[in-house]
Amino acid sequence: MGFTEKSLSAVIEKVRFNSPLVHNITNYVTVNDCANVLLAVGASPIMADDIGEAAEITAISSALVLNIGTLNRRTIESMIASGKKANEIGVPVVLDPVGAGASSLRNRTVLELLERMRVQVIRGNLSEISFLAGLHYATKGVDAAESDRENNAVTVAKSVAAQYGCTAAVTGAVDTISDGNRTLRIHNGHSMLSRVTGTGCMTSALTGACAAVTRDFLAAAAAAVAAMGIAGELAYESAGNIGTGSFHIAVIDALSRLTQTLIEKRAMLDEA
Amino acid sequence: MGFTEKSLSAVIEKVRFNSPLVHNITNYVTVNDCANVLLAVGASPIMADDIGEAAEITAISSALVLNIGTLNRRTIESMIASGKKANEIGVPVVLDPVGAGASSLRNRTVLELLERMRVQVIRGNLSEISFLAGLHYATKGVDAAESDRENNAVTVAKSVAAQYGCTAAVTGAVDTISDGNRTLRIHNGHSMLSRVTGTGCMTSALTGACAAVTRDFLAAAAAAVAAMGIAGELAYESAGNIGTGSFHIAVIDALSRLTQTLIEKRAMLDEA
Amino acid sequence: MGFTEKSLSAVIEKVRFNSPLVHNITNYVTVNDCANVLLAVGASPIMADDIGEAAEITAISSALVLNIGTLNRRTIESMIASGKKANEIGVPVVLDPVGAGASSLRNRTVLELLERMRVQVIRGNLSEISFLAGLHYATKGVDAAESDRENNAVTVAKSVAAQYGCTAAVTGAVDTISDGNRTLRIHNGHSMLSRVTGTGCMTSALTGACAAVTRDFLAAAAAAVAAMGIAGELAYESAGNIGTGSFHIAVIDALSRLTQTLIEKRAMLDEA
Repeated sequence: MGFTEKSLSAVIEKVRFNSPLVHNITNYVTVNDCANVLLAVGASPIMADDIGEAAEITAISSALVLNIGTLNRRTIESMIASGKKANEIGVPVVLDPVGAGASSLRNRTVLELLERMRVQVIRGNLSEISFLAGLHYATKGVDAAESDRENNAVTVAKSVAAQYGCTAAVTGAVDTISDGNRTLRIHNGHSMLSRVTGTGCMTSALTGACAAVTRDFLAAAAAAVAAMGIAGELAYESAGNIGTGSFHIAVIDALSRLTQTLIEKRAMLDEA
Repeated sequence: MGFTEKSLSAVIEKVRFNSPLVHNITNYVTVNDCANVLLAVGASPIMADDIGEAAEITAISSALVLNIGTLNRRTIESMIASGKKANEIGVPVVLDPVGAGASSLRNRTVLELLERMRVQVIRGNLSEISFLAGLHYATKGVDAAESDRENNAVTVAKSVAAQYGCTAAVTGAVDTISDGNRTLRIHNGHSMLSRVTGTGCMTSALTGACAAVTRDFLAAAAAAVAAMGIAGELAYESAGNIGTGSFHIAVIDALSRLTQTLIEKRAMLDEA
Repeated sequence: MGFTEKSLSAVIEKVRFNSPLVHNITNYVTVNDCANVLLAVGASPIMADDIGEAAEITAISSALVLNIGTLNRRTIESMIASGKKANEIGVPVVLDPVGAGASSLRNRTVLELLERMRVQVIRGNLSEISFLAGLHYATKGVDAAESDRENNAVTVAKSVAAQYGCTAAVTGAVDTISDGNRTLRIHNGHSMLSRVTGTGCMTSALTGACAAVTRDFLAAAAAAVAAMGIAGELAYESAGNIGTGSFHIAVIDALSRLTQTLIEKRAMLDEA
């Protein structure tokens, strides 16, 4: 397929070289970690959610990440204004539909966002992306429910990618990423990542940084997902037996030390 | 009294087994830690505070934790809507009256919340719970003021428990927990816990997880308080001499590694 | 000039002795770290941003820190109410104009805040303080843009100090602090501090704690800036090679262990 570990490491390297400004309209639970992982890989985070400045901040940024983790009416309009501005000037938009399927407000909002703007990448767990594919499953918190695992992530990713003309990344034990034409699977990561809040949000933030430096959004999403997966593996090796607090910090440490060589050596991807 | 260390460890074990979804409407200062301690003990956190979804999220949760740390008008109505829904469907409610006594808004709001819903557990420091008992003391930040320590935590806990028909937990150097009939004291913990922001909030979040798995709310509150106290001791042993940043992480590490055996071995409780 | 390392260490010592309550109206990205660094140095943080209580909380506090990192309309009015109350009763005000220059809303708001209240200290990077000096440079995220470095921080600090009758602190590789009469430079710090979000916000929070215990606001700002710089150096020595996550935690560790002796030994200041 011509898509190799080098394709991913090149994206991460370009993030460090270009240091893109990534505008995040995100939740207040994991926002600090999102900013810190962006800095860890060499990007520059900016968080701004007031309608009075959102679009203006998007206009000076190289990517926009919309995360509905602590959705509220005040910021929905900011998300729309920023998304429209991004579309207008060619800034890529990453959508993290946190908890889609869990409440009517989230469901309505995600669909509204997708109606009012074009997004380049959607990243979520199987439960959230299934909702977008029109398959409604109960979600449990922000993690994929047990029952959803039986669904076929490949089908769901392809379906959402086709429906919205974007790249869809379904993250889980195995990550599935599709742009409708090509579908990749990434086998990196560690189950301990699900014991720290916001590792999904952080992956979406990293996807923003990667989407800022390449127009190949499949590669961008795959690079971000692989980077987080490898960081999880390295963190488990260094801090897994200490506890989830140290593991959390070790994930950020690992992201800040990721090298092209390390990514090429550890990334495990195949075509679905 | 038939209340032993095993009663507490059984609750924590049940949290890990059931992995209850805990809905938090809380402050933006310590929310990440609240989510991470819930994950550390095996529960699932969900944070949602918009009036458009708050009650709906409560309806799919096994406990509701209301924390007024960064109180604002937008979320007060969400707290009330969620609290009413919780009462209606039998979901236990934990209230953390952060800073009660420090401003009229906090005072009015706490009393309004208690008027509009039934809460199963109230957890705060002596200054905050004294306010609810009708004893007004000046508060200093979110920590119990020196002068308040002389008050009798037992009297205050019993009084609030009786007045609101709930379990009241007054945490401090010694923790006092009463349901009006039984009153326990827990002698775990370490003073360094007061040098990290949000250890009180985290205890309230853990109380939510515990209240989700047992109808004995005295046991639930005691289990959460003991778990945090023991985690503080273990964290001090491993990281106390490094500094408050490492201690903070070590508290989460310790919670993620708590076992029934460890709780039974280290918990120090007696009847007041 | 009679201004020595001992002047700085004395301020930090007084913070630990007095444990001032510091009211922060700040952003939701770095607020947890701001609270934790205040606790680390022995101060007491309180975060309250609702118009219904902001001024009342300021009234019981010893310093007010206004940080526009995630500016929104709801909290601008709270900042003004708190600032006016602070001026009225003699509570020092620290302003952190995060991202000034990056959007019209930020620009307008910073100028409005400075028109509606007197501030005792303004702390920002060169890009932000340049904006206040009437020199408009593009800002990149919340970090000083490369191009701005050529500007003369001394000129900018003196100009803003004179214009607003306050102490202005321009932090960067070398920190410049001026009250219009005296201008100091601090040569502590480490470049890794710019790879963790919020080290500027944390410095502003520490400045609030220092301003609470002395009316010499030049000394207050210099003490806070030196403390953060020294903490950055110590953190780099202990955790620099592990990664940015561990470095972040080590900064807080170092602040919690700062002694007068350590500050006097490591502080590097001169007059500009």
